[in-house]
Amino acid sequence: MKQKIPVGILGATGSVGQKFIELLSNHPWFVIKEVAASEKSAGKNYADAVNWILSAPQPEQIGKLTVKNCVPDLDCRIVFSGLDSSIAGEVEEQFAKAGYVVVSNSKNHRMDFDVPLLVPEINPDHLELIKIQKYGKGCIITNPNCSTIGLVLSLKPLLDNFGLESVNVVTLQAISGAGYPGVASLDIYDNVIPFIGGEESKVEKEPAKILGSYKNGTIENLNFKISAQCNRVPVVDGHTECVQVNLTSKPAKEEIIDAWENFSSEPQKLDLPTAPSKPIYYFNTVNYPQPRIHRNLDKGMALSIGRLREDSIFDYKFVILSHNTIRGAAGGAILCAELMIANGYIQ
Amino acid sequence: MKQKIPVGILGATGSVGQKFIELLSNHPWFVIKEVAASEKSAGKNYADAVNWILSAPQPEQIGKLTVKNCVPDLDCRIVFSGLDSSIAGEVEEQFAKAGYVVVSNSKNHRMDFDVPLLVPEINPDHLELIKIQKYGKGCIITNPNCSTIGLVLSLKPLLDNFGLESVNVVTLQAISGAGYPGVASLDIYDNVIPFIGGEESKVEKEPAKILGSYKNGTIENLNFKISAQCNRVPVVDGHTECVQVNLTSKPAKEEIIDAWENFSSEPQKLDLPTAPSKPIYYFNTVNYPQPRIHRNLDKGMALSIGRLREDSIFDYKFVILSHNTIRGAAGGAILCAELMIANGYIQ
Amino acid sequence: MKQKIPVGILGATGSVGQKFIELLSNHPWFVIKEVAASEKSAGKNYADAVNWILSAPQPEQIGKLTVKNCVPDLDCRIVFSGLDSSIAGEVEEQFAKAGYVVVSNSKNHRMDFDVPLLVPEINPDHLELIKIQKYGKGCIITNPNCSTIGLVLSLKPLLDNFGLESVNVVTLQAISGAGYPGVASLDIYDNVIPFIGGEESKVEKEPAKILGSYKNGTIENLNFKISAQCNRVPVVDGHTECVQVNLTSKPAKEEIIDAWENFSSEPQKLDLPTAPSKPIYYFNTVNYPQPRIHRNLDKGMALSIGRLREDSIFDYKFVILSHNTIRGAAGGAILCAELMIANGYIQ
Amino acid sequence: MKQKIPVGILGATGSVGQKFIELLSNHPWFVIKEVAASEKSAGKNYADAVNWILSAPQPEQIGKLTVKNCVPDLDCRIVFSGLDSSIAGEVEEQFAKAGYVVVSNSKNHRMDFDVPLLVPEINPDHLELIKIQKYGKGCIITNPNCSTIGLVLSLKPLLDNFGLESVNVVTLQAISGAGYPGVASLDIYDNVIPFIGGEESKVEKEPAKILGSYKNGTIENLNFKISAQCNRVPVVDGHTECVQVNLTSKPAKEEIIDAWENFSSEPQKLDLPTAPSKPIYYFNTVNYPQPRIHRNLDKGMALSIGRLREDSIFDYKFVILSHNTIRGAAGGAILCAELMIANGYIQ
Repeated sequence: MKQKIPVGILGATGSVGQKFIELLSNHPWFVIKEVAASEKSAGKNYADAVNWILSAPQPEQIGKLTVKNCVPDLDCRIVFSGLDSSIAGEVEEQFAKAGYVVVSNSKNHRMDFDVPLLVPEINPDHLELIKIQKYGKGCIITNPNCSTIGLVLSLKPLLDNFGLESVNVVTLQAISGAGYPGVASLDIYDNVIPFIGGEESKVEKEPAKILGSYKNGTIENLNFKISAQCNRVPVVDGHTECVQVNLTSKPAKEEIIDAWENFSSEPQKLDLPTAPSKPIYYFNTVNYPQPRIHRNLDKGMALSIGRLREDSIFDYKFVILSHNTIRGAAGGAILCAELMIANGYIQ
Repeated sequence: MKQKIPVGILGATGSVGQKFIELLSNHPWFVIKEVAASEKSAGKNYADAVNWILSAPQPEQIGKLTVKNCVPDLDCRIVFSGLDSSIAGEVEEQFAKAGYVVVSNSKNHRMDFDVPLLVPEINPDHLELIKIQKYGKGCIITNPNCSTIGLVLSLKPLLDNFGLESVNVVTLQAISGAGYPGVASLDIYDNVIPFIGGEESKVEKEPAKILGSYKNGTIENLNFKISAQCNRVPVVDGHTECVQVNLTSKPAKEEIIDAWENFSSEPQKLDLPTAPSKPIYYFNTVNYPQPRIHRNLDKGMALSIGRLREDSIFDYKFVILSHNTIRGAAGGAILCAELMIANGYIQ
Repeated sequence: MKQKIPVGILGATGSVGQKFIELLSNHPWFVIKEVAASEKSAGKNYADAVNWILSAPQPEQIGKLTVKNCVPDLDCRIVFSGLDSSIAGEVEEQFAKAGYVVVSNSKNHRMDFDVPLLVPEINPDHLELIKIQKYGKGCIITNPNCSTIGLVLSLKPLLDNFGLESVNVVTLQAISGAGYPGVASLDIYDNVIPFIGGEESKVEKEPAKILGSYKNGTIENLNFKISAQCNRVPVVDGHTECVQVNLTSKPAKEEIIDAWENFSSEPQKLDLPTAPSKPIYYFNTVNYPQPRIHRNLDKGMALSIGRLREDSIFDYKFVILSHNTIRGAAGGAILCAELMIANGYIQ
Repeated sequence: MKQKIPVGILGATGSVGQKFIELLSNHPWFVIKEVAASEKSAGKNYADAVNWILSAPQPEQIGKLTVKNCVPDLDCRIVFSGLDSSIAGEVEEQFAKAGYVVVSNSKNHRMDFDVPLLVPEINPDHLELIKIQKYGKGCIITNPNCSTIGLVLSLKPLLDNFGLESVNVVTLQAISGAGYPGVASLDIYDNVIPFIGGEESKVEKEPAKILGSYKNGTIENLNFKISAQCNRVPVVDGHTECVQVNLTSKPAKEEIIDAWENFSSEPQKLDLPTAPSKPIYYFNTVNYPQPRIHRNLDKGMALSIGRLREDSIFDYKFVILSHNTIRGAAGGAILCAELMIANGYIQ
């Protein structure tokens, strides 16, 4: 790649937008050319407009960019959207219509019949869907919910090797998943909130599409049972999930671990810059995985799994951990864009 | 009750021991006459021996007591045991043999065939078991694990009204459950530990005994399926549990809530001093219950429940919350002793 | 007191308002007759209007009250104001003009020449100021900033016994001091914020007035040097302050401790319901005081002090701790009202 | 540097030892050849012996090393010591006597007259002291206390440019400073501990030596007043310090900021691998610096400063922040070793 591809970020001052900036600021293929946000910020230098909340320092060159409005006259080919769902639906369509490649982290278009809900390791062929989109040169692709993504990564090797009957999941989600300002400290400090608006529904619906099959221009959802319970816990980054599964064949424990450890897919073959070298790590240590220890594994893009054991109601239970703002948001979306480029979907 | 009954506390300097002292220091029926702990503390004033970790102030009169060794020559009728399980088994037997009533919070004797695993609202008749114990005037009764107790309180009205087929539970447990010093701050701050040694086994085994039936000198365990997954979260006090159940009959949501809300039992009828006025509170607020808001409800002795909803795998799911060091430890044990007195088991 | 005095709460749905409700709901002298808040809440039942954030359960009878607008047609004699400072200034004046006794926790009128900045243990005679107020039957009295109040309580016995030359203070303030939603969890979790808007100025200015002398209708400020640095730390309740002082006479350490331990004042003599039995507790334990251990001492109304030691720059240094939403806000204001009644300022 | 220098780590399984391993595992000059720890661990593979607590993954090649005893028969030239102070004094001497270069993070030898207490940006000439040490080819050099180091970095440019009269500091220290297991979660969660054993004394004594002058084989301590108060707060990494200073000349605010921003020293000139590109960053943002945002600045080796403002008792006050386990421990020690090599102290 001789010349870097100019990209823009919609919702650049928000928490997901900031994470896009952190992860893209030294990207080998992309260069941030545009940052766009609400009226309130437009016209200001990014450094003045943003309340930078990341521990990674704000890249100096980005701080000097002028914040634009979220209208489709940005000087770039791809836009990454970290927009709030209250406006993402319409704004993203406008950009797609105007010919931009929109890679969105918002929920609005995820379940649209013609929009890929993409996890590059799982369903790279779903990108074919954009050919039936109505946007000409533009298109919309989406990234799943931050709790869904870890879950489906753990399920894909099980599905492929053993068949999947049912999935029961209870999440312990980090506060960064709620954006900024998000959760009030008085609500979560020394506390658990056993409810996250709309989350359980997303975690119950998205996997069937992601794990579904692309055939002749449509996705056939995977048919299996799923139940989700979602909790917010006082952790900064990293969603932990307790998962139980029923599998069609009845594999031994070691076979399952092998399936996870040997899982490798398109992003690894293509050696995409943001791809983890290994999508899934299984730990034998009895109290692993843990968010503070494992969330940054393999650039924050890997899934950590531990505690696989037989269950008295389901076949097996285990614990998974993934970084909700990297693999579960900005990093996952960037990987999607990389896959599109490597596979020729973006000219 | 004209004269208060003298009681002793075994393991008085530990975290459970301190909670016993807090809860007993103004008790209408009991007076703390003896505090016993390890060799290291014996002979000192309690105030000097203890590293007081509770926010409730240490009662002045207790601070002046001389700490004794944990040998059965204490001047009291009842001993409450907060001993570490590494020594509790033998020490408690010695006290029982010497004629003391031992009310234990330790796991050692819980599953003994002749030892009641007592939750006064659920199985007051299990106290009959002590008649077959081999200790003469003495006896041992036990309190369940701190995660078990909230769970079985939520299940008892379901069992009685609708029949219980299977139970799936994922816990989010407070750090105080691990005692003191317990969990290192570096291990739990900004973190989740998805493992608590021995806990899942306790939560899977104890309910069948507690919910079982006393018949002719033995307990017939309840026959149902149960699976538990236990996590430590950064919360000081209060265990949250995500519960799913299959019920024999298929009640409507409102019937279940009624069963919980109307649940009242022996401790309430007897108006025991430590009994909650209502054992179970159901909340309609969508994000309730929460540990910091509900753990102290009804003196920390009540169970809070919320989020009852239909499930796609089980019949129903809901969230429960109880105070692990009050209802789940010291308070629960004191209630057991009160029941024994009210029902004439202690002369 | 045969009949309880009807009181109202302005800003009743906010965090300070909720604390007023908690502390007044079983008050021996006052009964909450009115709850008032913003347009948005007015007309609703309190239970529906409020997002209850306290761990103490919401009193049932208050939940049924209809929330009123903050206009002076409430059916009560005294109003406690937990209003936001953006509107408190004007609303409180309107109530005073209409003949209400306004006891305010807001900053707006604290430094007015004719408004008492009252700490009942320190300057009960400052209440005389209300006689020069222009409000007829009505009046305004104020409570100091939540960090000021602990500080001046520690200074008063030093001033009286040894003379006060200069005070240097660094605070470590709890998140509840910022109200609700207040501090975002992403801002304070695993973090310190070394800045609280306007706080250092309040802590540097208020003590001179509080410790000043009432003479012939005016307050003569105390003349001494003071410097404050204010930090927010991840603690729910309880402000810790590191204090250094220069004293006029050079007392021994034991003399200072005696001065604190023997300090008792008007609220104690009058046995006011909300007064701590002892205003100041000194602890010899080397790592005391601590917010989680001491904040609730003596109903949350006492000041805890520890670590008095000689300093190499100032004469002495020590650590203080007080409950910022009880002594430092709602409880302190209620104590002011009690003092007014006991001393005949309210008919 | 053609060939990497073999180094060993004493106390390799402890929290400082782990940080040494993290920071040295890809070092351009050093290669970890030996890991040594207590009897308990000796003989095991490092991966089996250690309870790895860092979020950075444990380097695979180190996990395979056999843990040795802390006796001077290690195959390396330099040893980095993260030993507990209960044994560090003697063990380090044994290694020095045996001809090893000992770079220690322990307190034991810091104040020895012939041991450099080294901060490479401040007193590189103090290394001359090792020439009067009695160890032949071996030597001991030390790293300051984790709170001292940030403080002296902030003071050095003030001293050089304006003269230093007195320093008042209050620290808010992270839990990782106490090692592992260190602070119990029940002690620090939702709490502040206003005491750290021995810490205030270190912070009051070490700066005079570090800022002192090397002349003819001895250090002449800097003569100035200093007072320290040390607190533990619930932050994982990063010590915040509120500092007040009196300066000999009375510079304007901008002059001070310039002195900090332009400060650069030996490690920067020598371009040492672990040196921050800039030792001090001054932030104008009103609520900066903050531990979670700034602790990792410039590889965790830079000092962040903010909030410089005039003070009513001292000349100026400001807030500093540095990473206690990188700049304040392992990283600082590695920088010392790099300086020794670059300046020819190690052959």
